[in-house]
Amino acid sequence: MSNQKQFNVAVVGATGAVGEQILKLLEQRKFPIRNLKLLSSARSAGKTVMFNGVEHTIEEAKQESFEGVDFALFSAGGDVSRALAPAAVERGAVCIDNTSAYRMDPNTPLIVPEVNADVIKEHKGIIANPNCSTIQMVAALKPLYDRYGISRIIVSTYQAVSGAGSSAINEMLRQTKEVLEGREVEADILPVSSLPVKHQIAFNAVPQIDKFQDNGFTYEEIKMIQETRKIMGDDDLQVTATCVRIPVVYGHSESVYVELKQDFDINEVRQLLNDAPGVTLQDDIGTQTYPLATDAAGKLDVFVGRVRRDLYHPLALNMWIVSDNLLKGAAWNAVQIAEHLASERQE
Amino acid sequence: MSNQKQFNVAVVGATGAVGEQILKLLEQRKFPIRNLKLLSSARSAGKTVMFNGVEHTIEEAKQESFEGVDFALFSAGGDVSRALAPAAVERGAVCIDNTSAYRMDPNTPLIVPEVNADVIKEHKGIIANPNCSTIQMVAALKPLYDRYGISRIIVSTYQAVSGAGSSAINEMLRQTKEVLEGREVEADILPVSSLPVKHQIAFNAVPQIDKFQDNGFTYEEIKMIQETRKIMGDDDLQVTATCVRIPVVYGHSESVYVELKQDFDINEVRQLLNDAPGVTLQDDIGTQTYPLATDAAGKLDVFVGRVRRDLYHPLALNMWIVSDNLLKGAAWNAVQIAEHLASERQE
Repeated sequence: MSNQKQFNVAVVGATGAVGEQILKLLEQRKFPIRNLKLLSSARSAGKTVMFNGVEHTIEEAKQESFEGVDFALFSAGGDVSRALAPAAVERGAVCIDNTSAYRMDPNTPLIVPEVNADVIKEHKGIIANPNCSTIQMVAALKPLYDRYGISRIIVSTYQAVSGAGSSAINEMLRQTKEVLEGREVEADILPVSSLPVKHQIAFNAVPQIDKFQDNGFTYEEIKMIQETRKIMGDDDLQVTATCVRIPVVYGHSESVYVELKQDFDINEVRQLLNDAPGVTLQDDIGTQTYPLATDAAGKLDVFVGRVRRDLYHPLALNMWIVSDNLLKGAAWNAVQIAEHLASERQE
Repeated sequence: MSNQKQFNVAVVGATGAVGEQILKLLEQRKFPIRNLKLLSSARSAGKTVMFNGVEHTIEEAKQESFEGVDFALFSAGGDVSRALAPAAVERGAVCIDNTSAYRMDPNTPLIVPEVNADVIKEHKGIIANPNCSTIQMVAALKPLYDRYGISRIIVSTYQAVSGAGSSAINEMLRQTKEVLEGREVEADILPVSSLPVKHQIAFNAVPQIDKFQDNGFTYEEIKMIQETRKIMGDDDLQVTATCVRIPVVYGHSESVYVELKQDFDINEVRQLLNDAPGVTLQDDIGTQTYPLATDAAGKLDVFVGRVRRDLYHPLALNMWIVSDNLLKGAAWNAVQIAEHLASERQE
């Protein structure tokens, strides 16, 4: 691989929870980087980060920063992506955007490589990385969708606080100590830092992630619904979601009910999941084996278990889907997309 | 009320998590007690407990213990109920059994007073108290069942560790400290103390409560499915459940999807819930108001929020149901049944 093409890569939001994981993965995967540019808000500019044993200084992200950049990975919030991604595209960069800014834009492909890598090439400069809870669900459901068709999905999530950033992790750990020590619990960040009301997350289950829409669903739930339909390319797919934050640090879990379009054999379903790329089946009730957030944390795959036939609906089944929300749910999916782009350009 | 009839009451399992709550409620509710007998296993016999300012000594539960008892409240495990409830009935006691021993027995009414108090009188000496996660769900769904009919329920639970007893609470708190201090986490009790494999519950979500059946469902899930059908008295009602333990001390939360038999107005649904006995509606997205386990802990009601119309199925809606699993989910429901029995005998 010594004569492989190398690329100029920019990481925007390099000091965030997802940005850190992106850098770790680019290093581990030996992504063919000629020049790495680490970008952030003015606040973090000047900090240094080690990459491949070399100290890199973080620069403030500006339009000009993207001059000569081949691939730009954005995870600094929707406003930053909206402000800078078009300028990066103008300068010839392909942007992989981890925010919700462009996900539902009809001109922007929304990609989970195991599901719809074939539409990456339709991009016009920006490729969107889906919401964390969507990614793991569609990766696990894709083999069933291809084999049987899917008519309905009803999902309830058990989401880790790391999805709300490092400050939410710190808040949960601090609140946990406050409860253990019998002190008053303070809530400053969750459920939504920009909204007035805060709720304790330690030893609790909070059924709000992101703001509410008028229809009573949260944006997190709407993201799961709309993004799943877009990624599957299926406007007839009926999806319902209830998104809940629980006191877990890393790893989103999902209780998923699925109605297929044809009858199925439950052992064939397990076999399909077992053979699916990026999916690990952990499903043995005899040994109490099923996916757990604490096991999935730090791993790249989507883990599936508790696969069982519904007792009443002849075409329905239930399953439990777990993945590290910062890895497959964010950084790893983005790096996978970058690897697809890089390998296309090698040809 | 000075000339009201008084009763001889026995509490079996008086030192357990539920037994303690039963005693507290009998006291708070000024239940008309002539004589209170506290019973337990040989292990706890001899301990003393205060009730209404008087010290009571706990005796070992034997068949003869129930001589002269009017009402016996059992919460000492299924084996104890199976061994002693028939002997108590022979001696003229009416047993309110909080274990799963008699719940599905066709001769035993399974009671949630707000739902089916009318069948209490059909008892033949034993009345069963349903599973905690079932009670709060049927209490909240009853007004919708009566008004519209219900065809399907799909529920995912977020259950507190107190449902597995005081030792499970202690295990979770100990594991939490172990994680915070960076020590190795030991798991001895959860998910099921009698099974060989244990999993960490601190900062985790464990999709197993009780043992597995061959069909892939856990007994907890089967309890929710079967008990809901029995309490509603509806063999056509389709129920699916996924039961998950999360690191919460008190209060079960449930994400519930419901398909009604007729079209509905969502504001009428809210009004019905608001007016339902034993149900408190907490549903205002403008003020981020919805039920939370930490708020429900210590309260008697079932709390309902996140009520919203499904985006695709014209007869479906979603809701979030929370209640204290030791109170309405166990002790309070049992004491409510005892109050019904007592008030019948006043007449």
